Amino acid sequence: MRSILAASAAVLFLAVNTAHAQSIADTSAQLRDRAVAGSAAYPVLESLTTEIGARPAGSPAQKRAMEWGVAKLTALGFQNVHTEPFTITAWVRGPESAEVTAPYPQHLAILGLGGSVPTPKEGIEAQIALFHTYADLLAAPVGSLTGKIAVVTQPMVRTQTGEGYGALIAMRAAGPSEAARRGAVAYLLRSLATSENRLPHTGATRYAADAPKIPAAALSVADAELLDHMAARGQPITIRLSLDSHTVANAPAWNVVGEAVGREKPDEVIVIGGHLDSWDPGTGAIDDGAGLSITTAAAKLINDLPRHPRRTVRMVMFGSEEMGGSGEAYAAHHKDEVAKIVAAGESDEGPGPVWKVQLPKGALADPAMSAMTGVLGPIKVVVDPTPSTESGSDVEGLQSLGVPMIALQPDATHYFDIHHSADDTLDKNDPKALDQSVAAWAALIYAAAESDIDFRAAAK
Amino acid sequence: MRSILAASAAVLFLAVNTAHAQSIADTSAQLRDRAVAGSAAYPVLESLTTEIGARPAGSPAQKRAMEWGVAKLTALGFQNVHTEPFTITAWVRGPESAEVTAPYPQHLAILGLGGSVPTPKEGIEAQIALFHTYADLLAAPVGSLTGKIAVVTQPMVRTQTGEGYGALIAMRAAGPSEAARRGAVAYLLRSLATSENRLPHTGATRYAADAPKIPAAALSVADAELLDHMAARGQPITIRLSLDSHTVANAPAWNVVGEAVGREKPDEVIVIGGHLDSWDPGTGAIDDGAGLSITTAAAKLINDLPRHPRRTVRMVMFGSEEMGGSGEAYAAHHKDEVAKIVAAGESDEGPGPVWKVQLPKGALADPAMSAMTGVLGPIKVVVDPTPSTESGSDVEGLQSLGVPMIALQPDATHYFDIHHSADDTLDKNDPKALDQSVAAWAALIYAAAESDIDFRAAAK
Repeated sequence: MRSILAASAAVLFLAVNTAHAQSIADTSAQLRDRAVAGSAAYPVLESLTTEIGARPAGSPAQKRAMEWGVAKLTALGFQNVHTEPFTITAWVRGPESAEVTAPYPQHLAILGLGGSVPTPKEGIEAQIALFHTYADLLAAPVGSLTGKIAVVTQPMVRTQTGEGYGALIAMRAAGPSEAARRGAVAYLLRSLATSENRLPHTGATRYAADAPKIPAAALSVADAELLDHMAARGQPITIRLSLDSHTVANAPAWNVVGEAVGREKPDEVIVIGGHLDSWDPGTGAIDDGAGLSITTAAAKLINDLPRHPRRTVRMVMFGSEEMGGSGEAYAAHHKDEVAKIVAAGESDEGPGPVWKVQLPKGALADPAMSAMTGVLGPIKVVVDPTPSTESGSDVEGLQSLGVPMIALQPDATHYFDIHHSADDTLDKNDPKALDQSVAAWAALIYAAAESDIDFRAAAK
Repeated sequence: MRSILAASAAVLFLAVNTAHAQSIADTSAQLRDRAVAGSAAYPVLESLTTEIGARPAGSPAQKRAMEWGVAKLTALGFQNVHTEPFTITAWVRGPESAEVTAPYPQHLAILGLGGSVPTPKEGIEAQIALFHTYADLLAAPVGSLTGKIAVVTQPMVRTQTGEGYGALIAMRAAGPSEAARRGAVAYLLRSLATSENRLPHTGATRYAADAPKIPAAALSVADAELLDHMAARGQPITIRLSLDSHTVANAPAWNVVGEAVGREKPDEVIVIGGHLDSWDPGTGAIDDGAGLSITTAAAKLINDLPRHPRRTVRMVMFGSEEMGGSGEAYAAHHKDEVAKIVAAGESDEGPGPVWKVQLPKGALADPAMSAMTGVLGPIKVVVDPTPSTESGSDVEGLQSLGVPMIALQPDATHYFDIHHSADDTLDKNDPKALDQSVAAWAALIYAAAESDIDFRAAAK
């Protein structure tokens, strides 16, 4: 008798749960269709890139961007709109130039890496040691580069996932210190980029504590290839490099926040967002105006529902992703709340379309989550059975405190053509791809917010 | 009897002529196949862009380019290699910058137009008057732009023929004077370009004698679109523009010449070539390293024949096309020889492939020329029955003295993505397209040089 009762209860529970999952899926599908019909993403992105443009963390433009973010989230109808200030050491680019002085005098298109020390005022003129791969540089003995400018020209691989970038990021982040350990006086790398053009791609570098800090810059792909062609002739090549920059300690920065407050469990929160800061050469349109606009538009669709989901959806515009700081600040500020942060996800790999979602381990056992295969399939999104392992660097701080990650993977095939370069402008964004991305985010985040799923428990 | 004899003579003449035409076509086809199998074009272009790079007329780099040209033509085995000096007024770019100062402070990517006067040292800061088309600017009344910076943002049309450029070139060449007549203090135009990127495209402008000379620059396409987005908000927009440049009177320049001397009529000459000078931002790879390399490689294939054609094929590397001067100098230097210049053609619209050739009026009546339809068809070149009307600006001087033009039209669909910008680098050239272009040039020019055709008489 007990087992029959228990079985009936289980069936009943499953039936109720399935009915609830179906109701969730229906609303998710409505949000999806609304987004595809035209979301707020492109107008938000157009506003940000037109009215603000480049907005490196710590710059006057980033303060304007913060004010823009507060005004935008307010105008879009979010609740609890506010800023969460923190401080960073801002890095500010000055005038930069590079040229081959011998044997073939030619101008080189470069961009200093974020965080690079400047050269002396008169620049550095030295012979180069050219390595066709980063592994070749690492194989060079200590002392072998004394007095030279190390140049690494390994090309980046184009992939749908962005893995070509991950595979080569040490060449930018760690390369200057590795070169310095071997005696180099400066470091140049081929831009981590998949396009063939004359615009260099910057990005942050991180000096090791135990190596001299040497100036470092990215060559445009075309200029790296020019050096390959020159080097093939076997004559010594001399380059003059001049980089200027300064840092500002305790520069103000802000995470900007707005919420769609949950109707039943407002203290249970799903954090989504993108980053508001950008590199300085472009207008920060694909990185990360796109991700910011996609998640803002998705949160707006959820916020506009006459019946909010049970849990709160919190939109965060992170204020210092490129040089770091906003994710750490967010996690520190919210460490007491972290058990109530149900999940988090960041959109920071371009305007899409999204082609894959990954959920925390075990989540697909929940009917509300498994129903997403049906909701997202029509907009060509795969629900990957492999659990998510990361989502974006601004939510890594939360992840390290145990918050489960929701990951939506945009098609990154062309992202690194533009990323971190002056070419990162509005025109590179396809409004339809933005809307499709909003559809995926809105549908999935709504489902997580309306469901009772405990991602942490599901993973056990 | 006389009529039978006359008819027999005519048949005999036709038969001999047809046999000769067939023999010409056979050799032309051999040259075509040699070129397609791999010509000297890419190695010549790689050498020029690697060892010299940017080489504006009147610069030290252009002197190095001249020396390179002499050495290259000599090394390739040409006869009568020499330079023909002339002088120009060189225009030298200095530092340049532009920014929106209100309502949305943003950097603008610009390039001063060749020939532009500088701004005052402190720059010019003024409200803009934005026109979406050049016709709108021309429709503005005299005096209506007083004190303003005129901005024209009309986009260029992508075409296979390059006609989109021709249709809009007045916007760059005449725009500054038209704006000045209406009171403008400076002029900005959307780059004459078909790509969506952040690199502006320069080019020469020509001031009218009866208008004030105002500073003029090209905006990148992305920046022109940014101004369109800002202007749509209806608020006044202010721009600060700073351009520096100077001119050098009587700067030395050179046309560099080499010949494949004709075996029977060495004084009858077919002039072909491209231009050796380039704009300063790129390495002059497609403009006009490509055309220079294509014609050099074609002339080399002809010169390498154990039996030279009857007439001389003369390869000319013109020394100042972009700001003008080399075509005029060439025509002036050769005005006494001009009756013996059988035909001329310039390759100055990129690396190809060639898709169309046009011959002087009446030429297709000659069997050697009509046989070209069979020789060029397999490499996908149309022999257009419409006569050629022009070939390139360096041969306009000869054309005005009555020299017939031979025109080979490369596919220009993507040429204006890159043309006159920093993106004009080696990697944009497809070696196979270069070889196909060499095939078309070598086959056609050989046929003209080996035949007896008198293009001037054929036109009558």
